[in-house]
Amino acid sequence: MNRTLVENLNENIGNQVRIQGWLHRVRKLGKIAFLFLRDRSGVVQCVVNTKEIDIKGVRVESVIEITGEVTESGAKNEEVEIQVSNLMVLSQVNHELPMEVNKENIEASLDVMIHNRVLSFRNRKVAAIFKIQECISKSFAEFLRGEGFKEIFTPKIVKEGTEGGTELFEVKYFNEKAYLAQSPQFYKQMMVSSGFERVFEIGHVYRAESHDTKRHINEFISLDLEMGFIQDEYEIMELEERLIRYLIHNICKQCKAEVELLDVNVPIIGEEIPKMKLSEAIEILKTQYNKTNLERDLDPEGEKLISEYVKEKYGSDFIFLTHYPQEKRPMYTMPAPNGETKSFDLIFRGLEITTGGQRIHSYEVLKEKMIEKGLNPESFEGYLSAFKYGMPPHGGLAIGLERITASFLGIENVREATMFTRDKNRLMP
Amino acid sequence: MNRTLVENLNENIGNQVRIQGWLHRVRKLGKIAFLFLRDRSGVVQCVVNTKEIDIKGVRVESVIEITGEVTESGAKNEEVEIQVSNLMVLSQVNHELPMEVNKENIEASLDVMIHNRVLSFRNRKVAAIFKIQECISKSFAEFLRGEGFKEIFTPKIVKEGTEGGTELFEVKYFNEKAYLAQSPQFYKQMMVSSGFERVFEIGHVYRAESHDTKRHINEFISLDLEMGFIQDEYEIMELEERLIRYLIHNICKQCKAEVELLDVNVPIIGEEIPKMKLSEAIEILKTQYNKTNLERDLDPEGEKLISEYVKEKYGSDFIFLTHYPQEKRPMYTMPAPNGETKSFDLIFRGLEITTGGQRIHSYEVLKEKMIEKGLNPESFEGYLSAFKYGMPPHGGLAIGLERITASFLGIENVREATMFTRDKNRLMP
Repeated sequence: MNRTLVENLNENIGNQVRIQGWLHRVRKLGKIAFLFLRDRSGVVQCVVNTKEIDIKGVRVESVIEITGEVTESGAKNEEVEIQVSNLMVLSQVNHELPMEVNKENIEASLDVMIHNRVLSFRNRKVAAIFKIQECISKSFAEFLRGEGFKEIFTPKIVKEGTEGGTELFEVKYFNEKAYLAQSPQFYKQMMVSSGFERVFEIGHVYRAESHDTKRHINEFISLDLEMGFIQDEYEIMELEERLIRYLIHNICKQCKAEVELLDVNVPIIGEEIPKMKLSEAIEILKTQYNKTNLERDLDPEGEKLISEYVKEKYGSDFIFLTHYPQEKRPMYTMPAPNGETKSFDLIFRGLEITTGGQRIHSYEVLKEKMIEKGLNPESFEGYLSAFKYGMPPHGGLAIGLERITASFLGIENVREATMFTRDKNRLMP
Repeated sequence: MNRTLVENLNENIGNQVRIQGWLHRVRKLGKIAFLFLRDRSGVVQCVVNTKEIDIKGVRVESVIEITGEVTESGAKNEEVEIQVSNLMVLSQVNHELPMEVNKENIEASLDVMIHNRVLSFRNRKVAAIFKIQECISKSFAEFLRGEGFKEIFTPKIVKEGTEGGTELFEVKYFNEKAYLAQSPQFYKQMMVSSGFERVFEIGHVYRAESHDTKRHINEFISLDLEMGFIQDEYEIMELEERLIRYLIHNICKQCKAEVELLDVNVPIIGEEIPKMKLSEAIEILKTQYNKTNLERDLDPEGEKLISEYVKEKYGSDFIFLTHYPQEKRPMYTMPAPNGETKSFDLIFRGLEITTGGQRIHSYEVLKEKMIEKGLNPESFEGYLSAFKYGMPPHGGLAIGLERITASFLGIENVREATMFTRDKNRLMP
């Protein structure tokens, strides 16, 4: 007999079925026991006559197989239940569980949850976070494919660090010293010049930052895109706005149950995402919030306040801050007049979730900017040479998958939205 | 005026358009010049009156913008051409090109092509390889999503090597020693146990093998899947056969032009992919091919010969070899009687393109097998603990993206099907 998933039991009333999953919970009532079996699609109540079937040795979270008849359920909120004729343990739990996963919320510290990651995923609410995360990454790819983008896979072992040697993890690469890529920045730009024009990558990136905050992890998934033949950075922002709308739409449609379960405060864009010069934002914070400590950049408090301002004034949870000063941006950023750049950040409810902008496409200008930033152009030969043979005007952006998931769901610590955390204190599991 | 892509010019006869791309080729004919502009969608001939527009300074592969009228073409094989009214150089080539990319085939060594990767991608045939590669990775994800699999992203910086310390790249992780993941093996198994049941990952893997062959690179993309609640390894093979059919179908349908351009000898499965015990294959090679040097494994010549045998006898380019001996398989492989295992390889035209099988799901058996293989279970704590709390019977497989691309296309050196090669001699670009 083929396995039936819990979600398909409704269509099988009166039939014998074989179901498989984890023993979610047990409730005993005299000679009757109710076993709750959980598989990837849901939970079902199974009625056992304990005089006929011995359930003594079966511990919660063991993997079991049940055969029986599907009947309409007497319990409220349940459509069907199983009258068990046979119970088999496929994989017995012989160890004490470090936490209970069958409650609505896991009652354990984040650290214990992360340490016992496999178990914590079995909790419905935890699983829901990653269902939504998968929706985001899948929708990112889908949307961009629809816009003519191609998916690329670029090396993560690199000789040249994106920003020039800081905050990089070192790799022993045969007899050479190499690094883990901080971002696919160089490669995605090169792939624009390769004739692909529009590319995206969903891949691991590495930051050897040793500070330990709720916003940072040392290995994460970066959603990157880069496109050629743009007029300016506004084209990238226009694309991102449509992308964000698509993500939110898909989350609400494809993850309706998860959005409800997690009680998500769905992000609101409004008419359009407001755009504001960084200098203008700083001015508003100074005059209207009496925040006078900002100079040519925002701090986390500034990001929060300007988000509140925009929410009140424009009804949007998002704001594009533009024209970041040159000294705050990497060497490849396209300069604008007055020491500013053609770059932007997207702030969502007080947190930066995207950095993007137009890039320099002239070989000579890029080389000059490297020198200005104190970098040696010879260390960037592989990257620079792509600019020698016809690089279109281009730009792009990057979104941290774990961070956007956490911020959309109102999760404070990005580790909760990270499958397996890598930080200064954690290399396992 | 918005940019028009070359592929959409047909619908614009009589209209003024703005097109952008690379200067593919120039042909002069008295006062007239023909400029061929290439964008991501194709090449178009543009007619220039050189008395009105100076094209002297414009070098091949420069990025240009042309405005003009779309007219029906006089040239054969061309539907339309552009009567140029304006030409602008967006990005000038000021350097000698290291190779010509506008020929049918690039006349340069593989090494020069790889070194000048960005340029070589501009060649139609090179680009076609990666169009097909993208079709493979995209179809892999699509097929598995249709089968209830979820995409996962697992860490590539690991403390525990899959096979226990050999052939790993070392990473300096703050004050600890870590490694680059050889495969997502441990994590995909753990994610089965997490309740996701069916998972796949498309991600980078690392092998610090120092030998330099046409089949091996040191960083590649692995298409991994793992599924719970299987009966045995035959369920994995059954899934893979349907997956391979889906890949071939999509390649033929979605990459028709590329398949023709590269003159691909489309893989043939036949009625079904034949399955044969490894020991049986060795016996056939011994008795029918007089190949007597094989003991409990095939060498590359053996793989070629058994593929020829199967092609002749069953009309299939594929064969599943099953029941590899325990000493040839990793510790997590499910044992079978007589020192064999519930594992398989998929051989395609003489080359192994998949390794898979059922895994051990018992904590105690797995621990025992580690010890048998000379490994210390304590070094695998993060992995092993996932088996303590209910691990379903499960199995999976891995396919190297670059290798399957190369073998399907009849490309001998896997580097040709690798976007940016990482091998013992190459860390750049």
